[in-house]
Amino acid sequence: MTRAQPEPIVRGLTPALDRPSLSNNTADLDRLRRGVEQALGEEAVVDPADYNRLSRRLWETDFAGRAVIDLSGHRPRIIDWRADSGPLLALAVDLGTTHIHLHLLDLDAARPLDQKVVPNPQIAHGPDVLTRIHYAVSGGLAELQSLAVEAIGRTAAELCASQGRSPQEVCAVSVAGNTIMSHLLAGLWPDRIRREPYIPVANRFGGLRAEFLGLDVLPGAPVLIFPNVGSYFGGDLIAGILAADLDRAEGVNFLVDVGTNAEVVLGGRDFLIACAGAAGPALESGVAKMGMTAAPGAIERVRIDPRTKKAEYQTIGCQKPVGICGSGFVDLAAQLYLTRIIDQRGRFRDASAVTNTEDGPAYIVAPAQETDTGQPIAVGQVELDSLLRSKAAMYSILRTIARKVGVDFANIKRFFVAGAFGQYIDPEMAIQLGMLPDLPREVYVALGNTSVMGAAKVLLERAAWRRADEIAGKITYLELNVNQAFMNRFSAARFIPHTDRRRFPSVPVFDD
Amino acid sequence: MTRAQPEPIVRGLTPALDRPSLSNNTADLDRLRRGVEQALGEEAVVDPADYNRLSRRLWETDFAGRAVIDLSGHRPRIIDWRADSGPLLALAVDLGTTHIHLHLLDLDAARPLDQKVVPNPQIAHGPDVLTRIHYAVSGGLAELQSLAVEAIGRTAAELCASQGRSPQEVCAVSVAGNTIMSHLLAGLWPDRIRREPYIPVANRFGGLRAEFLGLDVLPGAPVLIFPNVGSYFGGDLIAGILAADLDRAEGVNFLVDVGTNAEVVLGGRDFLIACAGAAGPALESGVAKMGMTAAPGAIERVRIDPRTKKAEYQTIGCQKPVGICGSGFVDLAAQLYLTRIIDQRGRFRDASAVTNTEDGPAYIVAPAQETDTGQPIAVGQVELDSLLRSKAAMYSILRTIARKVGVDFANIKRFFVAGAFGQYIDPEMAIQLGMLPDLPREVYVALGNTSVMGAAKVLLERAAWRRADEIAGKITYLELNVNQAFMNRFSAARFIPHTDRRRFPSVPVFDD
Repeated sequence: MTRAQPEPIVRGLTPALDRPSLSNNTADLDRLRRGVEQALGEEAVVDPADYNRLSRRLWETDFAGRAVIDLSGHRPRIIDWRADSGPLLALAVDLGTTHIHLHLLDLDAARPLDQKVVPNPQIAHGPDVLTRIHYAVSGGLAELQSLAVEAIGRTAAELCASQGRSPQEVCAVSVAGNTIMSHLLAGLWPDRIRREPYIPVANRFGGLRAEFLGLDVLPGAPVLIFPNVGSYFGGDLIAGILAADLDRAEGVNFLVDVGTNAEVVLGGRDFLIACAGAAGPALESGVAKMGMTAAPGAIERVRIDPRTKKAEYQTIGCQKPVGICGSGFVDLAAQLYLTRIIDQRGRFRDASAVTNTEDGPAYIVAPAQETDTGQPIAVGQVELDSLLRSKAAMYSILRTIARKVGVDFANIKRFFVAGAFGQYIDPEMAIQLGMLPDLPREVYVALGNTSVMGAAKVLLERAAWRRADEIAGKITYLELNVNQAFMNRFSAARFIPHTDRRRFPSVPVFDD
Repeated sequence: MTRAQPEPIVRGLTPALDRPSLSNNTADLDRLRRGVEQALGEEAVVDPADYNRLSRRLWETDFAGRAVIDLSGHRPRIIDWRADSGPLLALAVDLGTTHIHLHLLDLDAARPLDQKVVPNPQIAHGPDVLTRIHYAVSGGLAELQSLAVEAIGRTAAELCASQGRSPQEVCAVSVAGNTIMSHLLAGLWPDRIRREPYIPVANRFGGLRAEFLGLDVLPGAPVLIFPNVGSYFGGDLIAGILAADLDRAEGVNFLVDVGTNAEVVLGGRDFLIACAGAAGPALESGVAKMGMTAAPGAIERVRIDPRTKKAEYQTIGCQKPVGICGSGFVDLAAQLYLTRIIDQRGRFRDASAVTNTEDGPAYIVAPAQETDTGQPIAVGQVELDSLLRSKAAMYSILRTIARKVGVDFANIKRFFVAGAFGQYIDPEMAIQLGMLPDLPREVYVALGNTSVMGAAKVLLERAAWRRADEIAGKITYLELNVNQAFMNRFSAARFIPHTDRRRFPSVPVFDD
């Protein structure tokens, strides 16, 4: 049989089962398994924890129904039996340190049904991974695990409810997170990840049942946590590589995931080299006064009228603005430079466009009367400096890794820009800022949240889940040495677009 | 490598693991798995529930230790890592309705260390399987499961303690029980086993972890519950076939397990036909006033002095007698007949050897002053009638199944007699009674408790565990029709040894 679309990680199957009788009185589970094996043409297994439920369902449906088969493991595993003919649901999760992105999918139609972003409730016990590790090893591991599991479960239930479905119909879950988030979700002891020589408990997390984690979906639903490469290169990035198909790309390509860390992968189907460095927090919530992660009300696009110097903006969900997320911040800084409100050092130079606030001079993106909070949304010198450090770090990391491999920017075939902030970063603005190299624009592919995209991909294509392991096995991780050469590169990249203007021929030059 | 002895179900392995370092910083579990896979030459798995414990053990032992590998499933599974060089322990269990027999084994030396028999505490909620099913479906399933699990765990702890070991060192458990006992242990809903068309939830119980059952041994220890063939042919009998190597025997052979039911298997390596029928409760505890299951103080051997008509007896554990178990009862009845105290109908005929009690005439096996209870141990007409019904049922079942297959008793190659009562039944006495056919004595092999023997065998030989599944798949179960022909056979067999004396040429004939 040829299939029009890839086979999902979990599939339905409608075997013809004989009804039990005195002359055909094998056990319920043996009857089910045999029926499924005949239809599949290979051996299938059932987890002992599912025996009672499957047996009850067989009798409730009078042995006429649909088996749900998990294809993620070594052998097909029968995880449900249901009468209804409704589609199989699955949940893709990007488990971020600050936010959790969820996509609810219809596996039969191979399409997303709905999505939602919620804060990661673990934040109550630490804003970042280090404080959370501290909380975990001080006795809070189980609590941190439950907080993440319950947030995922609750949001899944809401997503299902809005489709008129039950979370018990969710029969597969995939989770992409960094190494520490993945450990906390699986309840694994995270202490040695932060201490030299930085050893995780596990890099692969096979055979997890939703019930084992306490996740309130179908009890036997597989929970596919993406593999890590090590302490610093997590499953979220493996998911990103998968989403961009970087492991299949010809030539040498870049994948950049911009967040608190600038995470960079260089390569293609022949090799994959990865590198990560602190890009500074300006691109995520927390430090910039108005900064926030992508969520309804976040300003994600900014354009400044060159004559009026006033900002036009677009928010997530078209709601009243409450802050600025990463992609909005990159847009804003580039626009401030292009409209000459700031100079190449990022200093305010046009006093007429700047307002004096109690925190000093600031540019008002949205005046108080337009915002949801009743407070103006403004950026001051502190935020701009922070952003310029971030963009400088990103550009320096890109140069460093390219030099290591001996490839010139001009030879990059595709440049994938990912990031969980906003819709996606606008490569044009990032180039104007000097954050990304000045390459022909068609080289750039803006992808948005590749973490949740990769998570969705392994649910819709079972072959992709095997690729995740292959990718993890293939990556070479490059330790970023912050030496004098790097610091020199970093200093030169602090300017807009760069000290060496020849690197950015398409960015206008202003003589201040 | 040739092995002097069969490979056990769980084995130790001492892989050379590199210590973690900055240049070798893979995750703990990946390091362990890779080391084991290199040593084994095949892929190994680890249950997510064991990640934290194994990781902690690796660091505690500074990565120098012994991996414990479960070989019972599709893939080798790493279940422990330990520093000590002590032997791997395992526990074989015969989970009977009234008693639980346990053997503690040393897998490295391939030998038993100790054994113990304890009452099945489920008895508090019903003396037999039907009352227990009733209790289970009235909300008591979890309680019945815990009672069995805790009794096994407690006794395992005692057996280990007497060896100076911890139950956490027990890294494999096998359990042979009838279909209902197996269901209750696995926490499976037993209701439909007793109602037409008599359907168990499961016939095979793969992939059970000790922790899943709440059994307090090594958490990841595999619990191998023997497969059933159906409602009436349980895993205890599969274990029996394995213990007798009946599935490998040449020619046509009998295996008889005598208890509350007479369970009979006929065949060998070419075919296996099974049949079970109520043999009456006389051979187990409950009905005969002095009857009891094999336990310390049970009379298991009886000889009567032809001149004095007094009994000499032997008890289990050489303790003061408290009752008579099955093998003692068979001995006693045969001896009563051979010493002419009872006639061929089982009626008392020698008044001088009989005492009048409040329950009528009885033969005193042990006078009050010799017993543990201070009460005499006696058998009356009621008990004798019950025993004769049991032996008649057994003989009739043997004839029925032999006729079905078209084999003559004379062509039986081996006749294995099993039974959990006493040391083992004495075939000579069983023949004198007319319970077993009058075949050359060398045909008979008395085996004792084949259930726990088979359970031990699968722990000591991993290949035997696969045979258990093959046996279950090979058996043809013969429904015993209690029709007129059977009842005629049964009536004729009520006599000692039989109405048709030509069937028992070696049993003396007395003309009353």
